[in-house]
Amino acid sequence: MQQLSSIKIAIVLGSDSDWPTMQPCRDLLGLFGLACDVRVMSAHRTPEAVMEFSRTAHENGYKLIIAAAGMAAALPGAIAAHTILPVIGVPIASGTFGGFDALLSIAQMPPGVPVACVAVGGAKNAAVLAAQIIGTGEPDVAHKLQEYKSSLAAEVVRRDQSLQGQIAGK
Amino acid sequence: MQQLSSIKIAIVLGSDSDWPTMQPCRDLLGLFGLACDVRVMSAHRTPEAVMEFSRTAHENGYKLIIAAAGMAAALPGAIAAHTILPVIGVPIASGTFGGFDALLSIAQMPPGVPVACVAVGGAKNAAVLAAQIIGTGEPDVAHKLQEYKSSLAAEVVRRDQSLQGQIAGK
Amino acid sequence: MQQLSSIKIAIVLGSDSDWPTMQPCRDLLGLFGLACDVRVMSAHRTPEAVMEFSRTAHENGYKLIIAAAGMAAALPGAIAAHTILPVIGVPIASGTFGGFDALLSIAQMPPGVPVACVAVGGAKNAAVLAAQIIGTGEPDVAHKLQEYKSSLAAEVVRRDQSLQGQIAGK
Amino acid sequence: MQQLSSIKIAIVLGSDSDWPTMQPCRDLLGLFGLACDVRVMSAHRTPEAVMEFSRTAHENGYKLIIAAAGMAAALPGAIAAHTILPVIGVPIASGTFGGFDALLSIAQMPPGVPVACVAVGGAKNAAVLAAQIIGTGEPDVAHKLQEYKSSLAAEVVRRDQSLQGQIAGK
Amino acid sequence: MQQLSSIKIAIVLGSDSDWPTMQPCRDLLGLFGLACDVRVMSAHRTPEAVMEFSRTAHENGYKLIIAAAGMAAALPGAIAAHTILPVIGVPIASGTFGGFDALLSIAQMPPGVPVACVAVGGAKNAAVLAAQIIGTGEPDVAHKLQEYKSSLAAEVVRRDQSLQGQIAGK
Amino acid sequence: MQQLSSIKIAIVLGSDSDWPTMQPCRDLLGLFGLACDVRVMSAHRTPEAVMEFSRTAHENGYKLIIAAAGMAAALPGAIAAHTILPVIGVPIASGTFGGFDALLSIAQMPPGVPVACVAVGGAKNAAVLAAQIIGTGEPDVAHKLQEYKSSLAAEVVRRDQSLQGQIAGK
Amino acid sequence: MQQLSSIKIAIVLGSDSDWPTMQPCRDLLGLFGLACDVRVMSAHRTPEAVMEFSRTAHENGYKLIIAAAGMAAALPGAIAAHTILPVIGVPIASGTFGGFDALLSIAQMPPGVPVACVAVGGAKNAAVLAAQIIGTGEPDVAHKLQEYKSSLAAEVVRRDQSLQGQIAGK
Amino acid sequence: MQQLSSIKIAIVLGSDSDWPTMQPCRDLLGLFGLACDVRVMSAHRTPEAVMEFSRTAHENGYKLIIAAAGMAAALPGAIAAHTILPVIGVPIASGTFGGFDALLSIAQMPPGVPVACVAVGGAKNAAVLAAQIIGTGEPDVAHKLQEYKSSLAAEVVRRDQSLQGQIAGK
Repeated sequence: MQQLSSIKIAIVLGSDSDWPTMQPCRDLLGLFGLACDVRVMSAHRTPEAVMEFSRTAHENGYKLIIAAAGMAAALPGAIAAHTILPVIGVPIASGTFGGFDALLSIAQMPPGVPVACVAVGGAKNAAVLAAQIIGTGEPDVAHKLQEYKSSLAAEVVRRDQSLQGQIAGK
Repeated sequence: MQQLSSIKIAIVLGSDSDWPTMQPCRDLLGLFGLACDVRVMSAHRTPEAVMEFSRTAHENGYKLIIAAAGMAAALPGAIAAHTILPVIGVPIASGTFGGFDALLSIAQMPPGVPVACVAVGGAKNAAVLAAQIIGTGEPDVAHKLQEYKSSLAAEVVRRDQSLQGQIAGK
Repeated sequence: MQQLSSIKIAIVLGSDSDWPTMQPCRDLLGLFGLACDVRVMSAHRTPEAVMEFSRTAHENGYKLIIAAAGMAAALPGAIAAHTILPVIGVPIASGTFGGFDALLSIAQMPPGVPVACVAVGGAKNAAVLAAQIIGTGEPDVAHKLQEYKSSLAAEVVRRDQSLQGQIAGK
Repeated sequence: MQQLSSIKIAIVLGSDSDWPTMQPCRDLLGLFGLACDVRVMSAHRTPEAVMEFSRTAHENGYKLIIAAAGMAAALPGAIAAHTILPVIGVPIASGTFGGFDALLSIAQMPPGVPVACVAVGGAKNAAVLAAQIIGTGEPDVAHKLQEYKSSLAAEVVRRDQSLQGQIAGK
Repeated sequence: MQQLSSIKIAIVLGSDSDWPTMQPCRDLLGLFGLACDVRVMSAHRTPEAVMEFSRTAHENGYKLIIAAAGMAAALPGAIAAHTILPVIGVPIASGTFGGFDALLSIAQMPPGVPVACVAVGGAKNAAVLAAQIIGTGEPDVAHKLQEYKSSLAAEVVRRDQSLQGQIAGK
Repeated sequence: MQQLSSIKIAIVLGSDSDWPTMQPCRDLLGLFGLACDVRVMSAHRTPEAVMEFSRTAHENGYKLIIAAAGMAAALPGAIAAHTILPVIGVPIASGTFGGFDALLSIAQMPPGVPVACVAVGGAKNAAVLAAQIIGTGEPDVAHKLQEYKSSLAAEVVRRDQSLQGQIAGK
Repeated sequence: MQQLSSIKIAIVLGSDSDWPTMQPCRDLLGLFGLACDVRVMSAHRTPEAVMEFSRTAHENGYKLIIAAAGMAAALPGAIAAHTILPVIGVPIASGTFGGFDALLSIAQMPPGVPVACVAVGGAKNAAVLAAQIIGTGEPDVAHKLQEYKSSLAAEVVRRDQSLQGQIAGK
Repeated sequence: MQQLSSIKIAIVLGSDSDWPTMQPCRDLLGLFGLACDVRVMSAHRTPEAVMEFSRTAHENGYKLIIAAAGMAAALPGAIAAHTILPVIGVPIASGTFGGFDALLSIAQMPPGVPVACVAVGGAKNAAVLAAQIIGTGEPDVAHKLQEYKSSLAAEVVRRDQSLQGQIAGK
């Protein structure tokens, strides 16, 4: 994975309490040979840090940014406002609406400044989408994605057989 | 109204297409003797302008800020992130959800950085709330609010009688 | 904080069962040097008390009122009907809808009688918004808000470093 | 219908703009031999009038009250707070949510103070429910309800035959 | 309460699993001196029983019917289809939507056949509404309702003082 | 299609105003060689007719029933309560919620009494589903379904080419 | 049940974690004398398997397919895309929206390709609906459905009496 | 733009009726120097075409796929099931829910198979996101994105000044 050392991805959390939800994102990025920095920054509490980070993300070598936030989840959009890097937004199910507010706050971006929204709590999908984006230019990552896709399918097949066995064995 | 000349309020629109919805806000502020500046700024398209405006709003003499936005309505929160002035948020019914997304994006702010959310399209209530806030320190504005409150009541009474007359006259 | 002794804020609860949710509001007001009275009054069970309280709140020296209620959360609006003081409404997540009914009942006020709605369970934001409103006329409170804002940012930075350390240390 | 002259029903509107929606309610009450007064009163703009009306409604001879309101539709509950008369609430589809906010604001009343909520815009059902309530003690009204129920059924049968004829005739 | 012995109310449950939710309804009816029969009948599993019961409810001396059901809560409407007695519907929070489906299924009745919908799980309000309906013709029940209303208010006042004491005592 | 003459399907409408929405259902059934009766019956206004029709539908030779209704759309469930024939429910977008209430009222049936719910306004899908059900025992209908499925695909292909042509031709 | 040995039903799960929810479906099919195969296949992870299975389901002797899935529940529709067999879809309450997303994803199929949607978690109703569909051509299954329907009714009657006894016995 | 001629993007529509909504996507891609093919394919009506297209998209030189669909919008997910290319999903506001069903169907993908969801009707954002993804490897596209971002900001500034002029000129 040496050849990927120059590819950097950032995972930005609106709160460190989002880390247990997002840890599988980092683990899966690792599976694709992609390193990442994890940061806690808040669109509403440390907006300058968000701006500074986002404005310089491109020149600092980040290829894309994954941002997770709950409730009025402004973080992914606030990052997207300052960069032309792709921003993947992960709605977090904090508060009492199960992440429904965060989903709308992240998906319903105005024309010109997109965020790539994944499912509520979709840490793994943020990682896969990130790898897919990197994979458009990195054959190695694309190859790993193919393997991952195959492993997903194999796992379903394995569980299919296991369940059929379990039922037959009753 | 000379004595209020030093009180400045800002109405910030996420898009100039919000102006027809928000014009009654400005008109009603005028009724309370409150001048306002109207600005178009976008949390996602001109974030630096939003930051610059919000950071200096206090020292530039603004007493509070009214911000209107639709969809993933980040503007009110983005302003609140940079100032300790009260921020009133008005969800705008753009998009296909009737402003429901904007309502959640504005009301569901995280702990520490509030926005005072009013109803979808609630331009008049933004103005009244602004006057109420100013009125906590300005007896003249408080007095005008009392008059306005009385006029609202009188108008309901007038319409009550008018409808009763209309029905009786049938 | 001597000079603030004349500033009174009221926290009105629709039910004493809302107190655990709202206690952080009172604690945070205390941090801003703002004293408050806490009352239990019900728009539907003690409407005269609500009316009496609201009508005299101004002359009794209250600067603003924070009202918390769940379900068909009429309390903030019922108070706003009788006073020109700013009313901050806090939707409470009672019932089976996670406070969604209360959010709509509080935010969707008709033209002329606003309530400043914060997030479901947003006790802290009610306190900060109250301080921001008081702070428009009280430099001391404004100063404390700046400190609080800085402390929020510092806390995020601290957690950012702590999480990075935790991850690096693995 | 002479013997019913002492039965009075009130239709209270939060706004005179609700009259076109509610006129069928009054017409249908008339069909049941029930007279009604129509009033415009606002829980938020004329709360004293609402209180005064509600507190004296019983002694003024009203048997029940029908209240229609939109958005944060506090009117039916505000009336119910002051009377032991049955209160029927009609959510009005004003605003951008199709009356969804009003439905929740009217139906989700706290324990002890009920409102009988009907469908959004359910003017006719408010009238029928009112007649049903009166009909528990007035055989004449009960008789008219039976006739009305029969006529509803007959109308469905007529339309059933008409549509079958129309289809067959093609 | 002898004089009320001829007044009968029915509580009909769509499932006996609704009984814990609805037991407070029966208890509160008892407080108002109103006896009730409790039945389990299902609009979808015993529709003939529902029809038979509803069609004869009037002649069998019932004054009104309280019906509780969850999900596609057809029971209150199915009863209302067969009687001119007032039907009070209580949405039950079964399933995964917190009773939201039941609320819509009960409130949104078509023109001509109303159900008086109360809050999700609103067992007590069903009882109070029932008493209010009976009370339009029974001064004794009306009197008890006044006492109940006073006791609700007194309880809020007591809790208000208790909380204030608790806070002051800290 | 002679051999299908003994297969009868019923389309039951809660209101004749649903006919324009449901006419494509009948047309499409015709395409599959399936005749149908169209009836207007109301779960709430002609419940006996619904019961009578449903109870005898099997012996009267109906193979399945398609029922369309809006708002608290009880009709499909009321039919299903009285028959073991498959019942297909079509939510109609009447009222102000776009058929959302009807969708929940039809889909969320309690255990033991299913309704096969299709999309809001899904007249065509009701017809196709009906044909699929009939087709499990009628090879002719199955054959026609295959043709229909092919024609759907061919139409998409045709439109694909047409749009590509239109774009290229610009 | 010998004569039914040629009738095959498939239960397809999007994930083996849906099995506890769907096991009652299989048990109830057994009660109706209907055997079934249980498979785990994913529209998104093993789409070829889904396609292969669906395309050959008819010729492989399946009479209908029951498919259960959560969140963006594409499985029932993906199967329906490849077969003219009836497909019953069961929304599963995975994720944080209680199956609401799955309900919409399954019910709102486009014209031409229906899925018969039952309630969220409606495993039993999927089985009953399957039996109803089979029963249109199999008198034995129809007979068992009648017995099942009677047993449901008898159970409600039994619980009605049990609850009445329990209440009387207090 | 010669040097980009090898970069191909596909816009896939679930229906040609989505073209007016999606045309701005193609126009904006053109602005970024990105050519695209536009196809009409249906996850439910031409699933084989979707599969064939998706499986070969990578080898056919597509860099990413934009898929637009309404209601149970399975198309983006169906494509993502067969490719490791990034898939951008655009919910279309067909049906009566304003695209709310499509938003959930597209965003709530299960772990392992992401779709990058943008706003309902977000044709432009799909184009910008596509350019951002391509831009991670193509400096020319990145440069054009910077220009586009600047032009968005400039347009807001222009409208800000224009509105201020319009207001001042009154």
